Amino acid sequence: MSLENIKKYEFGKPLNTGAVVVDIPKTEGIPTGFTYDEGSKEITTTLNKKDVVYGLGETIRGINKRGWLYISNNADEPHHEETKHGLYASQNFLMLDDGNRCFGIFVDNPGIVQFDIAYTDADKFTIRFEDNDTYFYVIDGKTPYEIVSSFRELIGRSYIPPLWAFGFGQSRWGYKTADDVREVARRYKELGIPLDMIYMDIDYMQDFKDFTINPERFPDFEAFVKEMKDEGIRLVPIIDAGVKIEEGYDVYEEGVKEGYFCKKEDGTNLVAAVWPGKVHFPDFLNSAARKWFGDKYKLLTDAGIEGFWNDMNEPAIFYTEDHLKEVFAEIKDYENRELDIWGFFAFKNLIGSIDNNPEDYRRFYHDFDGVKVRHDKVHNLYGFYMTRSAGEAFERNNPDKRILMFSRSSYTGMHRYGGVWTGDNTSWWSHLQLNIKQMPSLSMTGFLYSGADVGGFGGNTTEDLVMRWTEFGIFTPLFRNHCALGGREQELYQFGKPEDFKNIVELRYSLVPYIYSEFMKAVLNNGMYMAPLSFEYRDDERCREIEDQLLVGDSIMVAPVYEQNKTGRYVYLPEKMKLIRFRSYNDFDEEILEAGDHYVKAELNEVLVFVRPGKALPLTKPAKCVDDLSWDDLSYITFDADPESYDMYKDDGISRL
Amino acid sequence: MSLENIKKYEFGKPLNTGAVVVDIPKTEGIPTGFTYDEGSKEITTTLNKKDVVYGLGETIRGINKRGWLYISNNADEPHHEETKHGLYASQNFLMLDDGNRCFGIFVDNPGIVQFDIAYTDADKFTIRFEDNDTYFYVIDGKTPYEIVSSFRELIGRSYIPPLWAFGFGQSRWGYKTADDVREVARRYKELGIPLDMIYMDIDYMQDFKDFTINPERFPDFEAFVKEMKDEGIRLVPIIDAGVKIEEGYDVYEEGVKEGYFCKKEDGTNLVAAVWPGKVHFPDFLNSAARKWFGDKYKLLTDAGIEGFWNDMNEPAIFYTEDHLKEVFAEIKDYENRELDIWGFFAFKNLIGSIDNNPEDYRRFYHDFDGVKVRHDKVHNLYGFYMTRSAGEAFERNNPDKRILMFSRSSYTGMHRYGGVWTGDNTSWWSHLQLNIKQMPSLSMTGFLYSGADVGGFGGNTTEDLVMRWTEFGIFTPLFRNHCALGGREQELYQFGKPEDFKNIVELRYSLVPYIYSEFMKAVLNNGMYMAPLSFEYRDDERCREIEDQLLVGDSIMVAPVYEQNKTGRYVYLPEKMKLIRFRSYNDFDEEILEAGDHYVKAELNEVLVFVRPGKALPLTKPAKCVDDLSWDDLSYITFDADPESYDMYKDDGISRL
Repeated sequence: MSLENIKKYEFGKPLNTGAVVVDIPKTEGIPTGFTYDEGSKEITTTLNKKDVVYGLGETIRGINKRGWLYISNNADEPHHEETKHGLYASQNFLMLDDGNRCFGIFVDNPGIVQFDIAYTDADKFTIRFEDNDTYFYVIDGKTPYEIVSSFRELIGRSYIPPLWAFGFGQSRWGYKTADDVREVARRYKELGIPLDMIYMDIDYMQDFKDFTINPERFPDFEAFVKEMKDEGIRLVPIIDAGVKIEEGYDVYEEGVKEGYFCKKEDGTNLVAAVWPGKVHFPDFLNSAARKWFGDKYKLLTDAGIEGFWNDMNEPAIFYTEDHLKEVFAEIKDYENRELDIWGFFAFKNLIGSIDNNPEDYRRFYHDFDGVKVRHDKVHNLYGFYMTRSAGEAFERNNPDKRILMFSRSSYTGMHRYGGVWTGDNTSWWSHLQLNIKQMPSLSMTGFLYSGADVGGFGGNTTEDLVMRWTEFGIFTPLFRNHCALGGREQELYQFGKPEDFKNIVELRYSLVPYIYSEFMKAVLNNGMYMAPLSFEYRDDERCREIEDQLLVGDSIMVAPVYEQNKTGRYVYLPEKMKLIRFRSYNDFDEEILEAGDHYVKAELNEVLVFVRPGKALPLTKPAKCVDDLSWDDLSYITFDADPESYDMYKDDGISRL
Repeated sequence: MSLENIKKYEFGKPLNTGAVVVDIPKTEGIPTGFTYDEGSKEITTTLNKKDVVYGLGETIRGINKRGWLYISNNADEPHHEETKHGLYASQNFLMLDDGNRCFGIFVDNPGIVQFDIAYTDADKFTIRFEDNDTYFYVIDGKTPYEIVSSFRELIGRSYIPPLWAFGFGQSRWGYKTADDVREVARRYKELGIPLDMIYMDIDYMQDFKDFTINPERFPDFEAFVKEMKDEGIRLVPIIDAGVKIEEGYDVYEEGVKEGYFCKKEDGTNLVAAVWPGKVHFPDFLNSAARKWFGDKYKLLTDAGIEGFWNDMNEPAIFYTEDHLKEVFAEIKDYENRELDIWGFFAFKNLIGSIDNNPEDYRRFYHDFDGVKVRHDKVHNLYGFYMTRSAGEAFERNNPDKRILMFSRSSYTGMHRYGGVWTGDNTSWWSHLQLNIKQMPSLSMTGFLYSGADVGGFGGNTTEDLVMRWTEFGIFTPLFRNHCALGGREQELYQFGKPEDFKNIVELRYSLVPYIYSEFMKAVLNNGMYMAPLSFEYRDDERCREIEDQLLVGDSIMVAPVYEQNKTGRYVYLPEKMKLIRFRSYNDFDEEILEAGDHYVKAELNEVLVFVRPGKALPLTKPAKCVDDLSWDDLSYITFDADPESYDMYKDDGISRL
């Protein structure tokens, strides 16, 4: 492999994070155009007025990251607000493009890293390290695509899920019994809305213990898995990072016996609390522990399970035993004295900052294959290595099968083992908009199998929000409606117009041949599944500011409606395109629109797709699940396309497991 | 006065809230088109597909309120998020318009009221009362303007601030000394940025006691007020609702002696805690207490102060003494038992819900001029009556002077005594957008002197956000940059391009003759200062969905840029207009644009204004403060306007106090 356009710099004594799969020879010195200050642990460059800064994968704010302070510090952060500095995942890859010169940087550092992108100073881009033992890659290229492709070659091929994972999935934190799940399946079937997956959130487990099934609420689990699969539906259980401390629980007992859990300075296992109550955290950075935990998934795959989602793996910490003791000791002080108002705030803050407390991440250690490392130094690797644990096990134990796997927390490198969902968002219109902006950044970093909780996880949704979000979700590889206990129920049968939802989901199924083919091309060619317009139309100044239209694969552009009470939106066309206004897979308008600005109508039940010139969009007939789709009988919506150019959708030579 | 187009219905035995100033005869029965269910306390109507629902004054979400559940329940709510149900103020006026038929409703009820506007059911509008003793007005009219005008006649003339209050104000929670304030004045003067007001947040007081000045940090306050006024700058102090419990503090002692504070069931004064620590709440609903508290402002007006802002008057409650005791008793339980994870959440929630706890609002009572009323039944009146207390005192004690007064909490009726700011927003781009949407709703309800904290109160802002927000803020009557302790400093001199800020603020000063004249017309004619396009262009379907362009007065439309990293935006013109792209009051492009859709460039330092056909926009030369502006030497940007039509700006016959 030749990646001569990539330079690797090394500061201090960096750890090998596992992000990179190609050994690039080290370049001495400081990258051209940057200044490095070892004392302040800062590396800085100047931004041109025209520089657009892309990257950082799943995080908040825009496609163009200019004008904010981002911090790579994986966190259980359900409040995806503009004032936050990051979310569940850290992808330290960025690309600067002023229209003439573009280059990428990848900061391979597993600890906390700040990216001050024209925040403190409107013309400066500064990276601040908490620990400046780091690899620093600079990637040259003539175009954004070239840079992305080189970066992706550097970090290895993206994870490929099974074909059925491109269907629609329904989830809710709140399905407590097999009958709850059956009811979801029944309601979807009744309405004829396709469905491939029902997700099982934490309640399927016995007392939230990983790799257990509650036998009262899910009797004869294996038969139930089969019953659902016979209906065309896969059950996809959640796995959490923390292992419940409970005598007699094999995972706990084995982990203790073998020393597979993360330890405190004094060598005892850290006691944290998450859903199961008190837990130990498996030391996924230790390869023996990783193998041991990964093999546990076999319990479920042996029962017929073919997919999982890994959660709480930042790791989220509700509290640690040690810190909670300290807190209760402090409370006594507050109780015994007259509280002034600042004392009251200090008291509130004491309690309010128990969860995910930064101090707790300094209380425990990893055995990183022989090297003892304090957790905070490698914090951003934890979710990656948990998912790697599963992924390596699947390769060992299920070598001929693709297993669905995605994770909440991640770091570069995890993209080889699984996808991501963007975590616990909220039923906000602005989070639908955020989802649109996150997708191309995720594509850049190789997290191709990704998507958001359609309809919003937290809060109470509305029918129109679920509708508009579903209309965008049909284009994301991971397409799942998910919501939280306590919020308004949002399965597509909960609202007044199920027919409209049916049409939209069926459209997804019609698009699966296209989506799958384009997804696989992005995997195999290190390409973008969803891209900003500016990647393709680099000379078009207007495209540099467009963050609400995306290229999806090679043939189409989408322009989702993401505002309430709107029945239309503005669309900019960098070239002549054919508008398809879909109401369903077989009910749509076609209109050729000239390059330029257009106001395009889109009623609540209409989806806007634009076919690019010379391209074709294949459609198949929808079916109740992906397995039932025909790949031989495709119809095409084309725009001046040569039939030979799109014959490949029928037989693209890409395996469909 | 004849308001025959207004029908008043009465359910149960409503209180007189003071919202209304015209006595409308009672109509028996249920309003046509509504159903009323006394048992469920619900009144419901059906929405047409085309109905746009306007109103509710300051609250979250869009100009069109369809698709959400709003709750009138004034709250100290700094998280202005889409999932919230309301903010600091309750204005229960709404208007439905399907393009053919329009009508208004005003629900005069001082307690908690829910407005389920196509939230539960996409076709239904349901009002749910906690207490259905209520007045219910239905206002007919041929146009939105007619309905607004009738409603405003019903509720009385809006508050008029002094002329200088149309200048720019700088605020920050964090100016602790006279020298801090002098420094702000000095920096603005140095850069030549006009400034009329510096706001004094809670730190000017002695221990946060209303109507006191800290003598060490503000020695010789009267001289300091004069010193600032000689520079053209008014000091505007904050007044909080709670009165500190402190022996020897005259306000406290008088209030106790006269029985002017809110009492618990047992007749003792409620003890709550806010900034000063423990406080009593003046019973503003009692006219004697109201007079007493209002007269206290004289202490400050006698020292030369000419303006105030009333804060914390929902009232905000950090805790009540009684509830805190209960909490600490409960904590003991938690301490003594093994916490399971649900116990832990209950514990967190116990502490997290101490502030503004709904139970606390049921612990105290008002003497509503002879009627003992539990606070929660009249909760939404508290801020109104605090501001009425001040406003009535100003009429008594300063009859020949206009005093600046605005409040955080409000209810309909308060608009006669003061303006509002939209409370503690955050440095979010989406809150700039929210500000744009709030303004016309505030105009409808008579809160004409209003605006948001420009740049955002909470969080850390960025230069570009302050710039774009300032560019919109120059059109809001209340134009104030304000931010919170602990956040990034955001005075206009804190950033890299003060010259751009200077140009924008100077443009405001050039616009003061226009803004003031249009503001006064809206006050005197019960009109809209800022209006949605759909009010004016009612037959234009497109205008019904436009929420990011506003008519400001009679001559212009504005189209603010409210997204980061954007140097242009789409604008819809319902008719031919003249675009003015302002870089400063004397540096701008003019271009006549046809009706229809346009993509219009607007660099970070550019403001887009559109002059309507037949109209003129007067400009004066900027000055360092409003008092120094010339009203005789106006220039005009006109678009096919007859000079006679705009001569009036020179001498509009409106008093300029």
